[in-house]
Amino acid sequence: MKNVYFFGDGKAEGAAEQKNTLGGKGANLAEMTNLGIPVPPGFTLTTNLCMDYLDHGVYPEVLDNDVQSAVEKIEAIMGQKFGDPDNPLLVSIRSGARQSMPGMMETVLNVGLTKATIPGLIKKTNNPRFVYDAYRRLITMYSDVVMEKSEGIKPVSGEAIREQLEEIMDHMKNDRGVSVDIDLTADDLKQLCEEFKEKVRDTLGSEFPDDPGTQLWGSISAVFKSWAGKRAVSYRRIENIPEDWGTAVNVQTMVFGNMGDNSATGVAFTRNPATGENIFYGEWLINAQGEDVVAGIRTPYPLNSNTKTKDTDQLPALDELMPDVYDQLDAIRTKLENHYRDMQDIEFTIQDGKLWMLQTRVGKRNGAAAIRIACEMQSTDLITVEEAVARVTPDQLDEIMHSMVDPASETGAALLAKGLPAGPGGAIGQIVFTADAAEEWAKNGHDVILVRNETSPEDVHGMHAAKAILTAKGGVTSHAALVARGWGKCCIVGCSALQINISDKKMTVDDKILKEGDWLTLNGSAGKVYTGQLDLIEPDLSMNEHYSKLMEMADQIRKLGIRANAERPEDAMQARDFGAKGIGLCRTEHMFFDPERILAVREMIIAESVERRREAIMKLLPFQRDDFKGILSAMSPHPVTIRLLDPPLHEFMTLTDDQKDELATELNISIEKLENRIRGLEELNPMLGHRGCRLGIAYPEITEMQSRAIFEATAELTAADVSVAPEVMIPLVGMYMEYDHQEKIVRRVADEVISETGTSFTYLVGTMIELPRACLTADEIAKHAEFFSFGTNDLTQTTYGFSRDDIGGFLPQYIEGGILDHDPFQSLDQTGVGQLMQMGVERGRSVRKDLKIGICGEHGGDPDSIEFFNRIGLDYVSCSPFRVPIARLAAAHAQLKTQRQ
Amino acid sequence: MKNVYFFGDGKAEGAAEQKNTLGGKGANLAEMTNLGIPVPPGFTLTTNLCMDYLDHGVYPEVLDNDVQSAVEKIEAIMGQKFGDPDNPLLVSIRSGARQSMPGMMETVLNVGLTKATIPGLIKKTNNPRFVYDAYRRLITMYSDVVMEKSEGIKPVSGEAIREQLEEIMDHMKNDRGVSVDIDLTADDLKQLCEEFKEKVRDTLGSEFPDDPGTQLWGSISAVFKSWAGKRAVSYRRIENIPEDWGTAVNVQTMVFGNMGDNSATGVAFTRNPATGENIFYGEWLINAQGEDVVAGIRTPYPLNSNTKTKDTDQLPALDELMPDVYDQLDAIRTKLENHYRDMQDIEFTIQDGKLWMLQTRVGKRNGAAAIRIACEMQSTDLITVEEAVARVTPDQLDEIMHSMVDPASETGAALLAKGLPAGPGGAIGQIVFTADAAEEWAKNGHDVILVRNETSPEDVHGMHAAKAILTAKGGVTSHAALVARGWGKCCIVGCSALQINISDKKMTVDDKILKEGDWLTLNGSAGKVYTGQLDLIEPDLSMNEHYSKLMEMADQIRKLGIRANAERPEDAMQARDFGAKGIGLCRTEHMFFDPERILAVREMIIAESVERRREAIMKLLPFQRDDFKGILSAMSPHPVTIRLLDPPLHEFMTLTDDQKDELATELNISIEKLENRIRGLEELNPMLGHRGCRLGIAYPEITEMQSRAIFEATAELTAADVSVAPEVMIPLVGMYMEYDHQEKIVRRVADEVISETGTSFTYLVGTMIELPRACLTADEIAKHAEFFSFGTNDLTQTTYGFSRDDIGGFLPQYIEGGILDHDPFQSLDQTGVGQLMQMGVERGRSVRKDLKIGICGEHGGDPDSIEFFNRIGLDYVSCSPFRVPIARLAAAHAQLKTQRQ
Repeated sequence: MKNVYFFGDGKAEGAAEQKNTLGGKGANLAEMTNLGIPVPPGFTLTTNLCMDYLDHGVYPEVLDNDVQSAVEKIEAIMGQKFGDPDNPLLVSIRSGARQSMPGMMETVLNVGLTKATIPGLIKKTNNPRFVYDAYRRLITMYSDVVMEKSEGIKPVSGEAIREQLEEIMDHMKNDRGVSVDIDLTADDLKQLCEEFKEKVRDTLGSEFPDDPGTQLWGSISAVFKSWAGKRAVSYRRIENIPEDWGTAVNVQTMVFGNMGDNSATGVAFTRNPATGENIFYGEWLINAQGEDVVAGIRTPYPLNSNTKTKDTDQLPALDELMPDVYDQLDAIRTKLENHYRDMQDIEFTIQDGKLWMLQTRVGKRNGAAAIRIACEMQSTDLITVEEAVARVTPDQLDEIMHSMVDPASETGAALLAKGLPAGPGGAIGQIVFTADAAEEWAKNGHDVILVRNETSPEDVHGMHAAKAILTAKGGVTSHAALVARGWGKCCIVGCSALQINISDKKMTVDDKILKEGDWLTLNGSAGKVYTGQLDLIEPDLSMNEHYSKLMEMADQIRKLGIRANAERPEDAMQARDFGAKGIGLCRTEHMFFDPERILAVREMIIAESVERRREAIMKLLPFQRDDFKGILSAMSPHPVTIRLLDPPLHEFMTLTDDQKDELATELNISIEKLENRIRGLEELNPMLGHRGCRLGIAYPEITEMQSRAIFEATAELTAADVSVAPEVMIPLVGMYMEYDHQEKIVRRVADEVISETGTSFTYLVGTMIELPRACLTADEIAKHAEFFSFGTNDLTQTTYGFSRDDIGGFLPQYIEGGILDHDPFQSLDQTGVGQLMQMGVERGRSVRKDLKIGICGEHGGDPDSIEFFNRIGLDYVSCSPFRVPIARLAAAHAQLKTQRQ
Repeated sequence: MKNVYFFGDGKAEGAAEQKNTLGGKGANLAEMTNLGIPVPPGFTLTTNLCMDYLDHGVYPEVLDNDVQSAVEKIEAIMGQKFGDPDNPLLVSIRSGARQSMPGMMETVLNVGLTKATIPGLIKKTNNPRFVYDAYRRLITMYSDVVMEKSEGIKPVSGEAIREQLEEIMDHMKNDRGVSVDIDLTADDLKQLCEEFKEKVRDTLGSEFPDDPGTQLWGSISAVFKSWAGKRAVSYRRIENIPEDWGTAVNVQTMVFGNMGDNSATGVAFTRNPATGENIFYGEWLINAQGEDVVAGIRTPYPLNSNTKTKDTDQLPALDELMPDVYDQLDAIRTKLENHYRDMQDIEFTIQDGKLWMLQTRVGKRNGAAAIRIACEMQSTDLITVEEAVARVTPDQLDEIMHSMVDPASETGAALLAKGLPAGPGGAIGQIVFTADAAEEWAKNGHDVILVRNETSPEDVHGMHAAKAILTAKGGVTSHAALVARGWGKCCIVGCSALQINISDKKMTVDDKILKEGDWLTLNGSAGKVYTGQLDLIEPDLSMNEHYSKLMEMADQIRKLGIRANAERPEDAMQARDFGAKGIGLCRTEHMFFDPERILAVREMIIAESVERRREAIMKLLPFQRDDFKGILSAMSPHPVTIRLLDPPLHEFMTLTDDQKDELATELNISIEKLENRIRGLEELNPMLGHRGCRLGIAYPEITEMQSRAIFEATAELTAADVSVAPEVMIPLVGMYMEYDHQEKIVRRVADEVISETGTSFTYLVGTMIELPRACLTADEIAKHAEFFSFGTNDLTQTTYGFSRDDIGGFLPQYIEGGILDHDPFQSLDQTGVGQLMQMGVERGRSVRKDLKIGICGEHGGDPDSIEFFNRIGLDYVSCSPFRVPIARLAAAHAQLKTQRQ
């Protein structure tokens, strides 16, 4: 097995596709070398060697020779010699894993500086200050990384050696009366190096090695070992990077951007990573090292004159100061983009007028840039449609759709509390504690954030008026979360640190007290709550052209249909605009809360005789018919899946004393009887109580009225030549007998309406599959049901035995403790819940081959879940209107993944 | 296909095993005939013929001849002729299905009486009154059964013909000034017959047929058709009898017990059906028809002198009046029992001194009798051990274990309300509405019934003091039900008609008001609540000898182990007495409610720092150690499965103001803070909330304390040479990571205790499988878990999405409407929940072959469920102590069923 891969002088033994062996950095250095791009020569020690070394603690015997001959090749190219007193070669030792793990592993620079080589280097550079500065950096890094961390030598005092050396340096700066390193003279630094070595000797009881070979091998081993370091291990756990990948080590000739005013260093992107614009974009500094550009102590210069801004107008650009080098760099930019076919993030150093490329990798970009770059690269045929679609992540697409808290203002802002991210984006507003207050404040021109323990359908007007919603209880599929996502509104739920006192209009968080009118900023994408007003970034609508192009391309690829969950015509229109081709879930319960209707609803619930109940219900018929006419025509000619009444009835029964009086009078019963009846509706576990089709079975009149409303609306629209496709959905079926019972009523009413109106129309009847038992007996249910729609929220609840309203009490701990790797209400649990879904699909289709199967739970908008849904053969997913674009993109990704497999 | 089976004169074409073709009655008539027992000759028309006739509406052509020749055979044996004016043959036409459907189908008697045959019969019997009485009965039955019901002739007035005829008879009795039929003279009856025929003609517009053949065929068809009658259909639906079985028709020579004082009729059991005692037992009447014996108008005579009681001392016995006939009958009794090898229920008629047997069938018996008969028949080797065990149903065994409401007093008593039968047996007591009141009243010598909306662990002392428990809410696995069954106490739950007002100490049911101290009687086996005091039958302990024998025999057969669910040493002892070999579920939460402990429990819950929480928890350690010592030694050497803390913490947090003060002071926090914390614990759906292992994961100190208590108890007992076998059970696991997390703690503590005490002991760690996800991922969980115990209550809840506390609102309707055929919390849903269990068993054992698997949900005591558990290969079931005998018997039945298959 080959352990050492050389690169330099236009030829490399490795290549870009050998990332697994050479790591990302090593592979790209080899690739650039082969492209004829100037790369300081060096060699890569493989990831396999890493794992071998970590497992056995020794290197293969042959390695010594391999490294020796690689060093000799470098020496030949550079005309320098490692350890040579006159013309010494210095090298850097850097990690490089398959996948970037920024800052998680170690680096040692300037290896090869010794008492013997220092004079030669000073003579060669004529820059003693530069040489001693390099030396003190080497001592610091080596004593920390190699001696203390890798070799495990404990400092006598217990204080880390790096800190002790920094104290010495601070002390000297104090002594000299200077505040920055650069003001220390060559002599100062020379003295510092002596003091450093003394401290190392005293504290670690061991000399800083003065032998280049010792330095080289010590550094290589230290970098290998840093793969198993604490930071790296916990990073890998979070990022799900396998332990057995290992890191490569790159040993490379040192080049210096700080050798004088003919030297420089810089970083650049081949396109603008913030906008995607196709211009060369970067920063550089004269006489500086790479870390100076990013450290923020000196203001970096703009790379080129055409990217100068007001702030950087006075600073020199590279094309102005070193036009030849710039042209060389710009040519490399083009070469790299054409070669890698993606936007690159590059590092370069100019040593004494000569350009060296130190790194190239795919550049990170924000959402807007990702979309623009993908579209533009596709339109110039640099990449295919499939590649363009694959280049944009759902999160990047999401970014451009919402206001965001400016990350800059978020950094360092005082976090008040954390909750579950339930509605994405950012919002700023003043605290209000009731829906009515939200509406009133908003009417008076205030931006408000509605803060509640939890929300109920009665709060909807206030939720609509608020900029954002914040609740102390509930999970990501609680009422607040569902409603907020439906409107694309910022929302944080399950923020258990809040102690809300509504009557006093205040809340406490630990010892802080916040009152009505106080300002909050919410980052709904991260679940973070801040006091005060941070900055927001508004969505960049200029991206629309690229967004449309992206969506078009995604639609060419995807197989899954995309519908939206919506219950109002406006929402349906919005969903259409976002590209939904149908409604997958039209809930009907919110329609019942309208002030014009709620009395009849309550009469229906309290009525003691069937006649009285029927009478009350039938008052609702005209309203519901209008509801359905609205939504069916808004979505025409696409299908609309209407779910029959689902929630426990007591949700409708929160009454004020006045409302009780009114209702009791209307029904001609005593207040006591009314209250008894309301009490009788209370349930210990309403989620598992009298709801779903259990309502329609207990009160068939409800099913009848709703069916009639649907079919009368359908008949009217059909007669007016509006093409509509209603699908009636029976909720919460666990036994086929429940389905059959309700289906009979629906079909009977349809027949009645057809014969009464003389209009013929088609419709489907099907069911929501949201209980384990429905999945287990899907073959029985599919005998009569024409479609299934998985209700993955409820299915997740019952499969896990988790209430989505109550998981706030333990879910965060589960995720922190690694017991769950994600919230199963956000991204489907494919192992458990997914198994039941697969069973449901297979068994359902075993008796009805053309069974239409969709999913209308919150997972319908989650990319990972969408990939799973595509895999198990669903026909469509349905999600909040604002998630529709994400779903279209994710469905295309899912299909691409399937094609690859 | 043979349609007609003849029997008579010692030879029959059918036999007992042809029940499917001949029906029960026909098969037994054939069998008796073949045994040489005197049976009036006749023939059976098959069940196949019935279905054929009902399907096609016509008989096969050949049938006419077959029936004709069968009638001729009867004529030859009897020396009578059908329709003969001098010596006419009369026949009865009776139904007879495979399975007895008492009173659900039709009968026509005295067929063959016509104007032409009447004079001959009068001459032959010299008893005109008898003949006209027989004639008027024929007219009534025929016009009703054949003309109106079978042939569908509608009476002109709309009033049923039978009622119109009865009115005429009442009118005549009025006229004659007599009150009973028997006082009408022969002339009266003759006139009545004429009036009857006239009424039939007027009302039905059709003559009563005067032709014997017409009568015969009309009657046969009417009986066949009655299989499809309304009563029969709904009976079959309830009893799960298939529609396509059909009924046979038996045409049989009429014999008369009412032909004078040398005639008689009677019914008898070959053993006493109330006690099982091996004596001939029955009732008879001189000069009477069968219906007279059971109608209750005349007091029947005792069959034999040795069964006379005080009440019947003065009445004549058959062995006294007709000793020869009695001896003949007694010999038949022996012959039938030896032949059928079971206690028989027989009917006989003595016509003019000659004994005729009309029917034999297996006799119904109560629980005590069933057990005694099975044991005694086995001990005389009449039946095998397997047969004896199979003869006793679990319900019969249950009967002898509880007080019962006397069915006699229940008949006609005013039902107050119905609920779900949650604890079997009957109870009488005075209403109290609080646990404290229950305790106080009981202390003062009152029998009380505790009436609550629902119970909680805080009510346990009052539940213990009460004779029975009645709740308005909850299902058969609610708290009240679980606790009551654990104590074998009568309990009714989910009695939603009750409107309880605790503060006024009253409740209303519809418009009735009941106050504290009012009397109630509860039939817990049927879920019926009565006002006032009915009679109770106390369990007959004299049956113990037979009970023990039965249990011994069952234990020889069964393969399933039987454990009990118990948490107190007394309950464990009781369970041992009932034959449990281990505890399958020892809940630990009730132990936390002890007044000495509850403060520490609450401190633990409210504590804000880990240290404070640990401190509070550790106060509980000595108590828990004693708990476990008690129960482990009570069950020694059998295993005890101890479940770690399971319920949501807020169950411990119902506090009075005083308790709040005390707790706040103890914890040094403000009342406001305390109340906030308590509010924070409230959950919308506690069943799906922060409970089970989620508690132990959030508060590992609890798991640690409980494990320590278990293992310290184990170490102490082991050191004292008490052999114990603790099994630690982690509740509500849905992910293997949860299990692994908790298991690590348990094993660590075990190691600590072993090393601290120097005592070595063994133990198991396993988990409760009670969530769908646990079944779906059982292979992952079984990697570390040493045993599974199915928690079928929770598993049923989550599989169906039913809360056991809230199903009262719709379950009764589901069962009435046929959507569910039983309460899935009482008897396992084998289709859905069972499928998950099977998955759990297979997947669990796929990675751990010797995985011990039990079930500790309420289904552990349900015979149908036990059969399923045996089938899927569980190792044991665990149930309430009082269900242990039932479980032992049911497990034996299950094994017998498996062997048969």
